[in-house]
Amino acid sequence: MVINKGVNSAVRMAKKERQRQLVKALEEDPFLTDEEMAKRCRVSIQTIRLDRMELGIPELRERIKHMAENNFDGVRSLSLEEVIGEVVDIQLDQSGISMLEIKKEHVFARNQIARGHYLFAQANSLAVAIVDAEVALTGSAGIRFVRPVRLGEKCLAFAKVITNGPSRLQINVQTKVNGEVVFQGVFDVYRTDEEGQ
Amino acid sequence: MVINKGVNSAVRMAKKERQRQLVKALEEDPFLTDEEMAKRCRVSIQTIRLDRMELGIPELRERIKHMAENNFDGVRSLSLEEVIGEVVDIQLDQSGISMLEIKKEHVFARNQIARGHYLFAQANSLAVAIVDAEVALTGSAGIRFVRPVRLGEKCLAFAKVITNGPSRLQINVQTKVNGEVVFQGVFDVYRTDEEGQ
Repeated sequence: MVINKGVNSAVRMAKKERQRQLVKALEEDPFLTDEEMAKRCRVSIQTIRLDRMELGIPELRERIKHMAENNFDGVRSLSLEEVIGEVVDIQLDQSGISMLEIKKEHVFARNQIARGHYLFAQANSLAVAIVDAEVALTGSAGIRFVRPVRLGEKCLAFAKVITNGPSRLQINVQTKVNGEVVFQGVFDVYRTDEEGQ
Repeated sequence: MVINKGVNSAVRMAKKERQRQLVKALEEDPFLTDEEMAKRCRVSIQTIRLDRMELGIPELRERIKHMAENNFDGVRSLSLEEVIGEVVDIQLDQSGISMLEIKKEHVFARNQIARGHYLFAQANSLAVAIVDAEVALTGSAGIRFVRPVRLGEKCLAFAKVITNGPSRLQINVQTKVNGEVVFQGVFDVYRTDEEGQ
């Protein structure tokens, strides 16, 4: 009985502490997946899901949707549907975030690894989307596929303007799955406010 | 009458000479478009079409199909349908050619300019396709969009293996429209004959 009580209270303590950490971690990085939180806390994903339910924290996709509805600048250089992935945040000429879930149509039939051009498309379209201009076109890019991405993984691309000139921007894009970098690229984007350059 | 006769024979001479040049040019570069030949010969595209009909030379698309049916190695690293564009030629571990016609779904709604990731996808998938291995994945790439490509243009990508190691190849891809370079890239591709690297 005494032992049981001890175990129970230890479990309760652990849970409280875990939930406290969970809230804090999500404040710092709202893109944390359940998988990643489970790994950090050394519990099952199911446990994290239950924690979130108890705390009233929606799942990643819902959190992203909520962010997307609230706070981003209007995209100027293309229409929002032309961005590959879901736009989560856009701060024109500064930064942007998008999410692409790797589905069947994105992978090689043979090994379920995401085809490189989808990761490129996500990053490139996000880089173009954050440019504050009527017309923005990629001039060149240096990219690296850091590790293969597989079916079902959620790719979060983070774009950041590095240099910001009147007609040319350099934009860095890093794409992560569960906090791990899977793709990175530097894009040189040219802009103009007139059509037909 | 005499003048008319003279003009007619001059026209006939020009035509014969033009058709001779046409045959020779197509032997050297079977990817010449009617537009380009018209420009070279300073005649209308319609004239070139008539020349081709008289000479029994099919149009570019048909010529490409014909080449594609005849002479290429089997693609190993992916299935043929996974190559973006029509494969014209594949010589494993050496070179490859593909053709992508820019259609409505490939362009920005706003300015009818082809989206960069389609040109990237054509080049990248061709680079992977020519690798003689069960599994080939792009590690990194440096690319340049030389000039915007527009709706209706036919992009011919030419891939060439530059360095060919047991586990890593460097492949150069140049994409042309009417003989003019529109895109170029260098792709580092890793290969293995086992699944799941």
